[in-house]
Amino acid sequence: MIKTEEVTNANTTPGTGTMKALVYHGPGKRAWEDKPHPTIQSPSDAIVRITTSTICGTDLHILKGDVPTVTEGRILGHEGIGVVEQIGPGVSEFHVGEKVIISCVTACLKCDFCKRGIYSHCRNGGWILGNTIDGTQAEYVRIPQADGSLYHFPADADEEAMVMLSDILPTGFECGVLNGQVKPGDTVAIVGAGPVGLAVLLTAQFYSPAAIFMIDLDDKRLAVAKKFGATTLINSADGHAAQHVMELTEGAGVDVAIEAVGIPATFDICQNIVAPGGRIANVGVHGKSVELHLEKLWDRNIVLTTRLVDTVTTPMLLKVVRSGKLQPSKLVTHRFPLNDIMKAYDTFGNAAKEGALKVGLTN
Amino acid sequence: MIKTEEVTNANTTPGTGTMKALVYHGPGKRAWEDKPHPTIQSPSDAIVRITTSTICGTDLHILKGDVPTVTEGRILGHEGIGVVEQIGPGVSEFHVGEKVIISCVTACLKCDFCKRGIYSHCRNGGWILGNTIDGTQAEYVRIPQADGSLYHFPADADEEAMVMLSDILPTGFECGVLNGQVKPGDTVAIVGAGPVGLAVLLTAQFYSPAAIFMIDLDDKRLAVAKKFGATTLINSADGHAAQHVMELTEGAGVDVAIEAVGIPATFDICQNIVAPGGRIANVGVHGKSVELHLEKLWDRNIVLTTRLVDTVTTPMLLKVVRSGKLQPSKLVTHRFPLNDIMKAYDTFGNAAKEGALKVGLTN
Amino acid sequence: MIKTEEVTNANTTPGTGTMKALVYHGPGKRAWEDKPHPTIQSPSDAIVRITTSTICGTDLHILKGDVPTVTEGRILGHEGIGVVEQIGPGVSEFHVGEKVIISCVTACLKCDFCKRGIYSHCRNGGWILGNTIDGTQAEYVRIPQADGSLYHFPADADEEAMVMLSDILPTGFECGVLNGQVKPGDTVAIVGAGPVGLAVLLTAQFYSPAAIFMIDLDDKRLAVAKKFGATTLINSADGHAAQHVMELTEGAGVDVAIEAVGIPATFDICQNIVAPGGRIANVGVHGKSVELHLEKLWDRNIVLTTRLVDTVTTPMLLKVVRSGKLQPSKLVTHRFPLNDIMKAYDTFGNAAKEGALKVGLTN
Amino acid sequence: MIKTEEVTNANTTPGTGTMKALVYHGPGKRAWEDKPHPTIQSPSDAIVRITTSTICGTDLHILKGDVPTVTEGRILGHEGIGVVEQIGPGVSEFHVGEKVIISCVTACLKCDFCKRGIYSHCRNGGWILGNTIDGTQAEYVRIPQADGSLYHFPADADEEAMVMLSDILPTGFECGVLNGQVKPGDTVAIVGAGPVGLAVLLTAQFYSPAAIFMIDLDDKRLAVAKKFGATTLINSADGHAAQHVMELTEGAGVDVAIEAVGIPATFDICQNIVAPGGRIANVGVHGKSVELHLEKLWDRNIVLTTRLVDTVTTPMLLKVVRSGKLQPSKLVTHRFPLNDIMKAYDTFGNAAKEGALKVGLTN
Repeated sequence: MIKTEEVTNANTTPGTGTMKALVYHGPGKRAWEDKPHPTIQSPSDAIVRITTSTICGTDLHILKGDVPTVTEGRILGHEGIGVVEQIGPGVSEFHVGEKVIISCVTACLKCDFCKRGIYSHCRNGGWILGNTIDGTQAEYVRIPQADGSLYHFPADADEEAMVMLSDILPTGFECGVLNGQVKPGDTVAIVGAGPVGLAVLLTAQFYSPAAIFMIDLDDKRLAVAKKFGATTLINSADGHAAQHVMELTEGAGVDVAIEAVGIPATFDICQNIVAPGGRIANVGVHGKSVELHLEKLWDRNIVLTTRLVDTVTTPMLLKVVRSGKLQPSKLVTHRFPLNDIMKAYDTFGNAAKEGALKVGLTN
Repeated sequence: MIKTEEVTNANTTPGTGTMKALVYHGPGKRAWEDKPHPTIQSPSDAIVRITTSTICGTDLHILKGDVPTVTEGRILGHEGIGVVEQIGPGVSEFHVGEKVIISCVTACLKCDFCKRGIYSHCRNGGWILGNTIDGTQAEYVRIPQADGSLYHFPADADEEAMVMLSDILPTGFECGVLNGQVKPGDTVAIVGAGPVGLAVLLTAQFYSPAAIFMIDLDDKRLAVAKKFGATTLINSADGHAAQHVMELTEGAGVDVAIEAVGIPATFDICQNIVAPGGRIANVGVHGKSVELHLEKLWDRNIVLTTRLVDTVTTPMLLKVVRSGKLQPSKLVTHRFPLNDIMKAYDTFGNAAKEGALKVGLTN
Repeated sequence: MIKTEEVTNANTTPGTGTMKALVYHGPGKRAWEDKPHPTIQSPSDAIVRITTSTICGTDLHILKGDVPTVTEGRILGHEGIGVVEQIGPGVSEFHVGEKVIISCVTACLKCDFCKRGIYSHCRNGGWILGNTIDGTQAEYVRIPQADGSLYHFPADADEEAMVMLSDILPTGFECGVLNGQVKPGDTVAIVGAGPVGLAVLLTAQFYSPAAIFMIDLDDKRLAVAKKFGATTLINSADGHAAQHVMELTEGAGVDVAIEAVGIPATFDICQNIVAPGGRIANVGVHGKSVELHLEKLWDRNIVLTTRLVDTVTTPMLLKVVRSGKLQPSKLVTHRFPLNDIMKAYDTFGNAAKEGALKVGLTN
Repeated sequence: MIKTEEVTNANTTPGTGTMKALVYHGPGKRAWEDKPHPTIQSPSDAIVRITTSTICGTDLHILKGDVPTVTEGRILGHEGIGVVEQIGPGVSEFHVGEKVIISCVTACLKCDFCKRGIYSHCRNGGWILGNTIDGTQAEYVRIPQADGSLYHFPADADEEAMVMLSDILPTGFECGVLNGQVKPGDTVAIVGAGPVGLAVLLTAQFYSPAAIFMIDLDDKRLAVAKKFGATTLINSADGHAAQHVMELTEGAGVDVAIEAVGIPATFDICQNIVAPGGRIANVGVHGKSVELHLEKLWDRNIVLTTRLVDTVTTPMLLKVVRSGKLQPSKLVTHRFPLNDIMKAYDTFGNAAKEGALKVGLTN
């Protein structure tokens, strides 16, 4: 007989009560309110009790109404640390009571995309948490495809550091650093010193580039970038960032230009500074098309990449974090109890003024 | 003492007489006329007597006045087979009297770009023949950086086949097939069935893709593509090529989309049909910018490449041609004596009507 | 509620009766005898009714007693085509009644090795079929980790061709061709023209090498190799195969040497013929150590690989087979009903005399 | 007219006088004695006045008579910094008076091997300095193929640091780190903490491995390794190094095992500790064959590489050194004037006792 692992703690039995959650109620509206406990719906599901969560820039976009796949009543959030409360019979890699890292991308591991490492386009998952299904800014969350979407929490690790592995670090690393093929000795430019740009900055240093130019409009963020390892800061407020980069590189341009904002102007900087043979790695989420200057670039031997994070590098990132070569908790500037998440959103929504990068939400 | 190899045939002594050449005289004007014999100007130079040449689509662009680096009085042509007549003291790989393939790209092999295999951006070369220096549509040509820009002509090979290695085959192969990372089992779409698109088609088959869609406006060219190995032909005259491809792939799109025309409309087809995780390899020469739909592509994990041919694969292509797995002479549809090059231009300039792909010009 | 797909055909209800199977009874002993029907033991299991199977050289090794993990009473066989009869609740990619290809390697897809594409070292699988659990030379077989170990059978495909995808084609392709990094224009030597060597030969041609030398002691097998695309045949009976290769390559050696036998003498040929910068890809199963001439090879920039097939390329191979670029049924020389498997073993065990490559066993 | 750059300093006119040099006079015999000034012999030659040199472990092997290509009367040395005194007419990248780094490998850049980045097998070069032609432990040296064998000395750099780029750093980096494919998070074992093993250690850190085990018999060298970034030290004197590694990795083995000694016992450690899917990168110079346990490794999916340094990464290493991420002068433990080279050899020959790594020899 096939045994299904059952919930052992009667007080928290999923499916039998309510829980608190941050719910989207249409553009500009959110509430911390009661929602039913999630339940196992498929053999590959797990129910996880959230112990740490955080807020992503994407959550702000959703709140603006920019993400049409998110409908009213949806619990937001796609990042989190928690404890497994219940698992379906198809879950083999995790046990009830185990602490886990929740990946922002749900991966069945079985479809053609997953087998090619493109979890972001999983035919049974992808980015669905806090998007087309309820997310992690809640006391409990249902995680489909649990074996492909959860990671073992390392003994003695710090939850606040580990929640950076849910999304922001693999995003910076995969979309920016790996796609940009950062190599020892390279000159790298990162356009955008927000949390994602800073995640690019931290992980780019895995490959020992010779120079990292950080470009942003905000001197405070640039100052953070300096502390995080940027070698040159460029405030782009004068509209001449590309020109500055070209001067600093004596006309050569950069080996890797990483776009971490998501607007035409920042993309434009990238295409103006990439050296022949160089790479442009797009990380930013774009709302409109950009003008690609193929009339200049057609013969420059460049590679331009786009990517939604696949979280395939989470095992590698875990090893690097555990070795002490990366301190992700640097990215956390503000902390709140989970049930103060409404305040946390206020702070995160005023990131520039508040000097906020990532917020830690603990339960 | 350093010995310089000297010319041995008094009748053809370079530098002492005149020769015939196809000369550009401003937009729309060309002439087959007398020009001085070229001479050795630098230790790395070779003088080559042309035995076979051909005409490139780029030569037509030049004649329209579209290539501002080409000034009046320039001898055109960057493709050719010939015999080495004289070499400078720095030339070590070639000898007087040897038959050679002339590469369209001049490579010093010594600069940082050449060392990285990016000959197209050679600091002492690149595409200069028939552009910023005199070219190969002439009885003689000076080849700078001869050791990096010439290749040994294989014994018993066919000149007409080999002159396809000067430009068109490495262009199709490097910019289209290699940059597109064509793999066994892939579905590939090639937009443009002109000579370059057909060179992509021929060399893509080195990697055993499962399907090759050929897209063009001209049924005659599509018929040629069929003979050359295309598995599906799509006439794009109805403006729905992308839609057809999506239907044929049951909504999946293609693994590799190769742009071999150089206009916004054909680039647009590529961005509309590339599957998540797929590649767009640009081969076409673009005269204006294109609209890149990052708002759709940012999360589709695509790779977009541009490239001016480096001719780094010429040694590989030579091996494949010699093994009989590729018959480049298929691309030659019309033949003329070199001194009928004015007529050859007329024919090539009316390629669609004449059913012309490449012309062979023998001397 | 979680629904488990149940068996619909009462006559064949697994777990309730007996079936016929080829059983190992210690060195030299095998019998086609009654065994209990397999049953679902884990949520990821499937029960498959075998419609086509075959015999592998490894099965002969097992019968000699060379594979200590195989114990008496084991049903042999790790290749097969069949129809899904029952699935556990964790199986999501296959349905009862569906025809499937069974992979020789069992892959959970969830462990660290599987995530890296090294299915052969799956922590919950690897090569276990017909080894540490009962195999496919039977009327029914239990397939653990079904979602990672089965593949959809293409509509209208030929079972005999498809059963070559269970083991021999991915083995030749992954361990030989991919690990050997065969490229267009390469000179490749394959040592051993048995079924695996021939699978290397067939799949090496996906990459258009210029020359393929086939080396074997048996002229009949070499003649088959010629038909399958080998460009040069070398009978190694005179002990001078390496010398012949060096002469044929004018002292250069080969780009890729592929060992498909598994003994020191054939490995030795490989290390004697590999060119500087070349690759040795080991495919053969070795029973003892070899002498590696590092005193000659340390400075020759070679790459030597070993690999147990991962079957990660099965999706790619399926695409190539379906495109018509590979006809795996070429490898099948003899055919038997499954219940004549005892005779089939006799024939396959006398492969040289019988001119046998692979046998088709249909049920 | 072709101009040849002439020597401008009459006092040091090459070819017209004598110089001091370290000369090999058969096994065990060396002398610092007068030799004729070198002269330009080929258009690609340069004459360099040595300002800094050093001694390599290979020089000690030569002195033992282990390198048969080195004949009596040969000036030793293949590492050096100097000033260009004269160039042949084929040299285009360097000028008289310029300070340069001399690469241990001579590369014509033009042959098939050089074009593939395998400079070590250059048909017109390779390791010839201090081997088949006179070397750098002298006041002057002739550098053939100067454009491929010299590198521009960075302004304001330290000669002692830069001379580490002649051989030891690219050797450790290319043969060990790049061939071993060291990645972020990897567990790496380096067998041998001599100068080359330490160069591997320093450059492995470019890729942020999680753990680096250093294995050696000498605690003093291990202590140096600790300072240079090794995370775990293993003294192999007890003969159980492999066992210790397996325990430390909980039976998993290492991702990368790098052999930096060159004897069967140290190679054996590598093959005993490599994890499935791992790499063994051989750096050591081997004098005899090793026993390769293919009976254990055939199914472990490993990659084993050999390599003579190509120095193709010198430009990359220069960038990393200039960025301050690598301090090669750490490797220099002893310093002598060049004309005390006889003493320097004594010290370097007793490296263990003297605690010597590399010696700096300045002129």
